[in-house]
Amino acid sequence: MAEAAEQDLLLAAAFVSDAQYNRNIPFRTSPEAVRLYHLYNHWMMRTATYFFIFLNLSLALFEEPAVYPLPFLATSVLEVLCLLVFLGRLTHFAKVTLHNVFWKDAKNICIMGAILLSLTDLGIYGVLRLYGVRSIRWSRFMRPIFLINFAESRQIRRALRSIRNTLPEITYVFLLFMFSLLMFSLMALKLFGERNLQTAEGLPYFKNYLEIVFDLYVLVTTANSPDVMMPAFDFSSWYALFFIAFVIVNTYIFMSLFLAVVYNNYKKHLKNEIRKLAYMKRRKMIEAFNLLKEEEGEQFVVREARWKQLVKLVAPDTSNSHRELLLRISDDEQKGFVDKKSFVQLADLLNIQVVTLKIRRHPLARWAPALYGSAPSRLLRGLVRHRFDTLIIFAALTATILNATLQSTMRYNSQQILDIVFILRVLRLIRIVDSIQRFQVIMNTLINIVPTMLTFGGLTLVVYCVFAIIGMEAFHGKIQYFPANSNAPHALECGNPALKDSLFARGKYCKNNFNNFASSFIVLMELTVVNQWHVFANGFANVTGQPAKLYFIAFHIVMVIIIVNIFVSFILEAFFVEYSLEKSEVETAIEQKIQELGMGVQEDELQHEQLLDNMESAEHELEGDGGAKAQSKGLVFKIASKRYRTVDALLQRMFEAEIPLEDEGLSFEEILNLSPSSAIPRSPSSESAA
Amino acid sequence: MAEAAEQDLLLAAAFVSDAQYNRNIPFRTSPEAVRLYHLYNHWMMRTATYFFIFLNLSLALFEEPAVYPLPFLATSVLEVLCLLVFLGRLTHFAKVTLHNVFWKDAKNICIMGAILLSLTDLGIYGVLRLYGVRSIRWSRFMRPIFLINFAESRQIRRALRSIRNTLPEITYVFLLFMFSLLMFSLMALKLFGERNLQTAEGLPYFKNYLEIVFDLYVLVTTANSPDVMMPAFDFSSWYALFFIAFVIVNTYIFMSLFLAVVYNNYKKHLKNEIRKLAYMKRRKMIEAFNLLKEEEGEQFVVREARWKQLVKLVAPDTSNSHRELLLRISDDEQKGFVDKKSFVQLADLLNIQVVTLKIRRHPLARWAPALYGSAPSRLLRGLVRHRFDTLIIFAALTATILNATLQSTMRYNSQQILDIVFILRVLRLIRIVDSIQRFQVIMNTLINIVPTMLTFGGLTLVVYCVFAIIGMEAFHGKIQYFPANSNAPHALECGNPALKDSLFARGKYCKNNFNNFASSFIVLMELTVVNQWHVFANGFANVTGQPAKLYFIAFHIVMVIIIVNIFVSFILEAFFVEYSLEKSEVETAIEQKIQELGMGVQEDELQHEQLLDNMESAEHELEGDGGAKAQSKGLVFKIASKRYRTVDALLQRMFEAEIPLEDEGLSFEEILNLSPSSAIPRSPSSESAA
Repeated sequence: MAEAAEQDLLLAAAFVSDAQYNRNIPFRTSPEAVRLYHLYNHWMMRTATYFFIFLNLSLALFEEPAVYPLPFLATSVLEVLCLLVFLGRLTHFAKVTLHNVFWKDAKNICIMGAILLSLTDLGIYGVLRLYGVRSIRWSRFMRPIFLINFAESRQIRRALRSIRNTLPEITYVFLLFMFSLLMFSLMALKLFGERNLQTAEGLPYFKNYLEIVFDLYVLVTTANSPDVMMPAFDFSSWYALFFIAFVIVNTYIFMSLFLAVVYNNYKKHLKNEIRKLAYMKRRKMIEAFNLLKEEEGEQFVVREARWKQLVKLVAPDTSNSHRELLLRISDDEQKGFVDKKSFVQLADLLNIQVVTLKIRRHPLARWAPALYGSAPSRLLRGLVRHRFDTLIIFAALTATILNATLQSTMRYNSQQILDIVFILRVLRLIRIVDSIQRFQVIMNTLINIVPTMLTFGGLTLVVYCVFAIIGMEAFHGKIQYFPANSNAPHALECGNPALKDSLFARGKYCKNNFNNFASSFIVLMELTVVNQWHVFANGFANVTGQPAKLYFIAFHIVMVIIIVNIFVSFILEAFFVEYSLEKSEVETAIEQKIQELGMGVQEDELQHEQLLDNMESAEHELEGDGGAKAQSKGLVFKIASKRYRTVDALLQRMFEAEIPLEDEGLSFEEILNLSPSSAIPRSPSSESAA
Repeated sequence: MAEAAEQDLLLAAAFVSDAQYNRNIPFRTSPEAVRLYHLYNHWMMRTATYFFIFLNLSLALFEEPAVYPLPFLATSVLEVLCLLVFLGRLTHFAKVTLHNVFWKDAKNICIMGAILLSLTDLGIYGVLRLYGVRSIRWSRFMRPIFLINFAESRQIRRALRSIRNTLPEITYVFLLFMFSLLMFSLMALKLFGERNLQTAEGLPYFKNYLEIVFDLYVLVTTANSPDVMMPAFDFSSWYALFFIAFVIVNTYIFMSLFLAVVYNNYKKHLKNEIRKLAYMKRRKMIEAFNLLKEEEGEQFVVREARWKQLVKLVAPDTSNSHRELLLRISDDEQKGFVDKKSFVQLADLLNIQVVTLKIRRHPLARWAPALYGSAPSRLLRGLVRHRFDTLIIFAALTATILNATLQSTMRYNSQQILDIVFILRVLRLIRIVDSIQRFQVIMNTLINIVPTMLTFGGLTLVVYCVFAIIGMEAFHGKIQYFPANSNAPHALECGNPALKDSLFARGKYCKNNFNNFASSFIVLMELTVVNQWHVFANGFANVTGQPAKLYFIAFHIVMVIIIVNIFVSFILEAFFVEYSLEKSEVETAIEQKIQELGMGVQEDELQHEQLLDNMESAEHELEGDGGAKAQSKGLVFKIASKRYRTVDALLQRMFEAEIPLEDEGLSFEEILNLSPSSAIPRSPSSESAA
């Protein structure tokens, strides 16, 4: 059962109630549309889409300038194939969405435009190529659009929206910062310009205003500290005060302000988006209820038969006993119907990963108890039980086997693969640290941020792709790498005499170039880390002209000032959420929910009490003695560990806890238009009376 | 009127009520003690204390190794003088405090110990010196203790407390981080150790485990990126993945975690300290009320005569009309007494900087209206009205005059002073930016953080002093600076052949040394900025041995990981407080308070309504036409601009708004023992009935 249980439930409800069209629901609810919707969301379809998105992006590895060259025809065919898949996926989406909703959505238009432009560009480029004319494949910039705009990439879009919303305020701080930078540069020109000082490389020091601005911008990033200060400092110690003031104002205060602005907006928009999700979920559940409801005395309810039909449709894999348990929880007084309050919780109930296990003793334990209880067998069982571990061992095993195979079939340097095996073994030590109680909050934060790290991976990929493609157009082939013992001309100056005596050549940075997609990525990674970025900027400016520096400044602003700060904000927020949950010593929202539900059932018969006991301590019962009763019944409910939850999920549950259960919430349009500053207007059940 | 109006009020109340001793008040309240207390808090006494604290700290400039050498006798006499002043100040404090409170306070013991140890050390050093034996002046480490522990430095102590409270959690993250660092180093050793690679300087690459740990620690600070990667990257591009993984885990995630932990604790403890302050204030006001209260009908009140006596004593400079206004606000129904609720607000009332101005037309306007209204005159008035400006112009004028004087009296390079004048002129441009509405939140944050910047200045001073003194003991004289055209031996290697071919000498860093107090400070500043710190560490390790690196690592941990992160936390919090005040479109807490007070009075006669109008829009009325009535009355109340408020003050007012006015609050002991996690126990007025 995926995250979107409520969406499935609403569609299933429309299906069960045979509603052909309902003006409250913004998507098609005909049986055919529902079938198409399920197909659209099938994991294979989603995986295939991602595969083609990444294939399309990785085409840059094979196109000129290529890491692994392929003929133009091959890459063109692959690209057309990808575009056709995207078109098919979009058409499929159109079939499950209402027309007006589909055409109102900017991302669909965006995808269509990108497909069209890519095909046009590919055509023009191909024809020109036939006639021997080389042109720029400008549509390659558009490839990240597919990564951003396909419905699966909700998180990346959210991060981009957050950036877009933050931009105005970032801009104000940036303007002030630029003002400060320009003023300090003016002062520096006045203070040092006429002293005829020289840098450590023997160049004139602080003579040219634009160069001063660049040097001081680099100082803000601290990359040329303290070198930029030394000539003035050697002249007079008092000049150090100028640089101290500069660093305090610009590096410490302004850079922290950037973080403050980004973090503030990130928090604000994150909360708003999650509020929207929580309200949307409630809305969908209420719509589903409205579709299925029947009158029962003074209230509207969903009768047991319909409820079962719904759950069967939505979660066809659940066992009868599990479905029975859910019904008991929803209809705790066994009246034969589910009321609105319980019905609304159904999505949560289905989302709790309750695994129904028929407890049987291991066949070996029954047939050969001595063998089963032996030390090696216990070891094996222990290993199998800890999946973190098992994964690592499995990977190590694979690598070892691979290594042996490769060694026997070709003259391959097995050292590298042995290294991988070694690294994987070292990772096992993490488990030891994790078992120490003190490190739990920190480790939980680290674990919880992993899924969202993927979002930032996606975001970084988008930015890197765009900058890599620009970089390759601008700097391709300008800088060459020669191995240490090469005797090519200008081997020490990266094949370019313009780099003679530059810090770039002296630092042996020649392999950092934009000669192919992979190299570009590594250069951009180094620029993200910031240190020595001015050496790169000056190096590439030496070989292509001073405007090249703008490329590096732009990358710094986009990647470091905006995206890295969002990443830091994200980690701050993840830690605070984790910390507040841990510190309050209240169990997490999920466990609370189970206990709430447990309350309702525990008053019933013994059997249910026992079931809920099992839900709470299933893992122990698998091995322990307390599981006697459960074993006699043969059922164990195991809930997913509370550790592996994303920050989003934690926040969403915190937010849902704040919406009163009776609250009808807002309409779909109202929810979509929620802004961070708008308070929630309480609309007391205008539709429940209908 | 200083911040501590409530302290003055409580003492004055004790004085007025003639209470000789009250077990609820933790300080002496005899008339003599109150007089001593006022003397103790006199601005001249406070300034003198600070003067001697900084004199004591700056002795390091004149002692060996000296920037400006003074004979040992002179510095000794100065030091003894400083210590005597401190002893006198402490004795004075003992006279105004109860014995048991004084001796329970760790900071008093600490000061006494420091004075005693300093004198002992000075004596021993002096005697040994007479016999020609050189020893270490170890008591110099203790000098920052006086800066920390004198009562005036509350903010610095708070910051230190915050650091102390954060240490356990920092330690856990640090241990995990070290674990990660050691693991990655082990992997690096395995991956690269046997490849016989060489660094750009031709040294063996990643051969020695401890060196790898150091290099990777430096990489966490990004200071040696990408150089540390290049040899491995040149060997195989795939090795870049190792460094990418390392940077993501350690630089991005762990360093952000440090910020998260520090910020989280900073926020928690700041709120707790400010809560304590708010409760302490309430407690003191209630004690003052209890001292002065008389029975009136069914309630206790303070009669008008006593109230006036109290205000006269506490604020002897307020005019009669101002006092009358305050009384009207406190006793809004003119019953002849002030009830408890109004009395408790008196400290706030006195803290609001209401300046009573007798509005008269400018003498020139009366005697020569034409001249007064002329353009130059208006310009002059405009300039005078904007004090920010006036200050700059005044400073510029002073510098110009100073310049002219110096030029005529000696052969001084006037260029430097002209530069100062120029810089001061450039600062005027800030006003233009400030006038743009969009930049207001940012500018307000920048302005509000200035006072607390001083706290961090103090904290940095303490850390720098300690590390500078250690640094001078360890590295003094090891590295020399020679001007560019010197022909001293090893001039290019900073006078030390061990630095031949080192990055330190090649970067011309020779002037960065620990040869005197001022140089040490500049080196520590450069280490705070982080970049190239490993070049310093390696340079000093070359001349004094590898353990020198520990000094640099320790400084990085203390200064960058802890103090800079607290500074960043502080700016984040300042921005959020400012932002939430601005964004909620509610006027700031002060204005709200005035409006609350205004409510009580506006129901009265016209006169008061008018007075409060004046309070709100006094600045406009100074020039506008609406001031006709005020002018006829001849009184204008002008409140201090809400812009120039510290974050502390803003937070405190926010917090006070949360304490219900009727709340008695906690006892002094309870308040002092409040911890961040303890909820406030509501103790419903156990003493008010007495």
